Amino acid sequence: MIDLSRDHAERLDAADPLAGFRDEFVDAEPGLIYLDGNSLGRPPKATRERLAGVVADEWGRGLIRSWSQWIDRPALVGDLLGAELLGAAPGQVMVADSTTVNLYKLAVAALDARPGRRVIVTDDDNFPTDRYVLEGLAAQRERALRLVHADIDQGLSIAALRAAVDADTALVCLSHVAYRSGALLDMAEITDLVHERGALVLWDVCHAAGAVPIELDAAGADLAVGCSYKYLNAGPGAPAFLYVRRATQATMRQPIWGWFGQRDQFEMGASYDPEPTIARFATGTPAILGVTAVEEGVRLLAAAGIDRLRAKGVALTSYLIELADAWLPGFAVVTPRDPARRGSHVSLYHPEAWRLAQALIEAKVIPDYRTPDRLRLGPAPIYTRFVDVWEALNRLRDIAETKAYERFPARRARVT
Amino acid sequence: MIDLSRDHAERLDAADPLAGFRDEFVDAEPGLIYLDGNSLGRPPKATRERLAGVVADEWGRGLIRSWSQWIDRPALVGDLLGAELLGAAPGQVMVADSTTVNLYKLAVAALDARPGRRVIVTDDDNFPTDRYVLEGLAAQRERALRLVHADIDQGLSIAALRAAVDADTALVCLSHVAYRSGALLDMAEITDLVHERGALVLWDVCHAAGAVPIELDAAGADLAVGCSYKYLNAGPGAPAFLYVRRATQATMRQPIWGWFGQRDQFEMGASYDPEPTIARFATGTPAILGVTAVEEGVRLLAAAGIDRLRAKGVALTSYLIELADAWLPGFAVVTPRDPARRGSHVSLYHPEAWRLAQALIEAKVIPDYRTPDRLRLGPAPIYTRFVDVWEALNRLRDIAETKAYERFPARRARVT
Repeated sequence: MIDLSRDHAERLDAADPLAGFRDEFVDAEPGLIYLDGNSLGRPPKATRERLAGVVADEWGRGLIRSWSQWIDRPALVGDLLGAELLGAAPGQVMVADSTTVNLYKLAVAALDARPGRRVIVTDDDNFPTDRYVLEGLAAQRERALRLVHADIDQGLSIAALRAAVDADTALVCLSHVAYRSGALLDMAEITDLVHERGALVLWDVCHAAGAVPIELDAAGADLAVGCSYKYLNAGPGAPAFLYVRRATQATMRQPIWGWFGQRDQFEMGASYDPEPTIARFATGTPAILGVTAVEEGVRLLAAAGIDRLRAKGVALTSYLIELADAWLPGFAVVTPRDPARRGSHVSLYHPEAWRLAQALIEAKVIPDYRTPDRLRLGPAPIYTRFVDVWEALNRLRDIAETKAYERFPARRARVT
Repeated sequence: MIDLSRDHAERLDAADPLAGFRDEFVDAEPGLIYLDGNSLGRPPKATRERLAGVVADEWGRGLIRSWSQWIDRPALVGDLLGAELLGAAPGQVMVADSTTVNLYKLAVAALDARPGRRVIVTDDDNFPTDRYVLEGLAAQRERALRLVHADIDQGLSIAALRAAVDADTALVCLSHVAYRSGALLDMAEITDLVHERGALVLWDVCHAAGAVPIELDAAGADLAVGCSYKYLNAGPGAPAFLYVRRATQATMRQPIWGWFGQRDQFEMGASYDPEPTIARFATGTPAILGVTAVEEGVRLLAAAGIDRLRAKGVALTSYLIELADAWLPGFAVVTPRDPARRGSHVSLYHPEAWRLAQALIEAKVIPDYRTPDRLRLGPAPIYTRFVDVWEALNRLRDIAETKAYERFPARRARVT
């Protein structure tokens, strides 16, 4: 029998070796419980100070001269990110563009590297921008997009994927952690499977980076992309990152031939002659404020340590599931119950998920809603307390029992 | 006979209606003269304060809820920019991605809109990233890239362009103000010429926006891109903007099918169905800090007024040219002398331009160097004083006369 008391949550917090990291973040509203760090992470105080310094000192005083330190920052922060969170040796990760643009660049590079193969494989529950980018490429390049069916609660099965990847497959693009259910795929096993068929694999690690240990090099991954504004806490629309395995860099080409990919860029030569390194996957001028925010976000996670973050993430999500099972009879946990098969967020099915989310927000708990009927709760190991999970589930229980959510209007699609 | 005294420069500043705007910028080093605002503009104080607020309040306290105000910001700031500086009615400008990525997106859209035509035209002195992006597209899409020769001092001639654009031309891509010489093209005349041949025109207004009045709508321009970190003062790598004429939006498609272009984005529908508006030219999550910095930069320029900024830009560059003629016999002005044919920067030819630039920097004057032998001086009308121009040219005269630059090593290409 688990202990459902608030005291128990407080004891878990008291024993949490990462508890002190909560103070490293900019103050939120007093009393607010934030369970959407998997959508937008919170600002570290160090980021606030560092950005103020970039504006006043590097930009304001250093002016154009600061490019001497800015020019290498996207690669240096990429190396830091690779070493601390992605299992990538130096020279393979770069901070650049958005996840969407990076997906496009690397998917084109992969298709060009497998010219005779006509199929792109992804799953039908992959994150929308991944599906749309691949759909666009399939249409533009006369490839077929093969959508493997994934269970929206339990994620993609290896068996289904195995049946879909064949000798005509050029590229397999999958999310390491599914955005809706939180299901975590086995990167090494799937990468092997894809390679056995001679295809390339592109991993989207948006919902995994900073939450679960990632071993891109060890898994033999070819390509990866990810965003920095979730667990990496780099801020809204901060630049994304990309990974290209060193062995394939010199032979792979991305389609956007920008000046930041050019060898001896400031020679401004007549023809495009890309760097033989990860730099060839850069395009235009990097967003320096954003790149710097990624650096600070990664530094803070590195100080906590990804193994400790993962352990706490498992503990928080397990605790959340226990409370949901005990307190929320009208809900269903639609996330793998085996902690080894999920990331750091948990989805709860309820037909009134939308109105429940509105009621929770009024009750000072910020969840996420995902179509069509899921509450998505993302405790971020670096700043979420066990008592936050207890409070959130307790308030949700109260809202469900009293039907307080019925005061809120039903969901309407956004009119644009 | 012009008055070469410092007193004269001070009198010009005393009569400058925009003089007060200099105080609206974050302090630089005392005594530093900055003539590289055409490469990286200075931070407005309002931007510093606003960014601090975005981090602490919108991001830190508002957290995910702030997307309700962030989601429309790239289009709202685009509208502001369009109205104040680009001559574009609402709904045609959006802040997004980098100039390079925007060039790629719009150039592909243009090629797809002219499927039977096989030629892309630009000039051989266009900014490198423009040339590289077009070179890449030509290679990837079996088009020919036709490079019209442009005089690197006086810019592209209408006659040369007229001879190059034919019935097989799909797209003409040109810089409104040339990055090296500062030569300004007649947007309306060239747009007409291109349209007469049935081609589309894509204007790069990076070196023009905020410095010269631009009338995209009136000129009949089809497409435009530009950056925000030069005269718009939005900071290193702040997001760029794009313009797509309203009449062509619904039929044009850009190739990167990201979720921010999707109709009813948060429905996360199965297939890509882009908005019929400018939103379809968005890709991934917008860089909110950067977009906000663009807003503040544009607001400040709007307060000054583009006509007054242009008048001062003409006065500053004319004054600079007069001093160069009088004081710098070993140099040549390699920028059009007719103010109606140049933007807000002036290039000076000297075989030792690189070493002269190093000596100027030591003398607390920040110029720009452009290959192979040009000093590029960019007085920014909103914060550059006439006395700054006087001091810069006076110090340059001293460096040239005393050959102080000879102490500096010759230029070496950057080893990467």
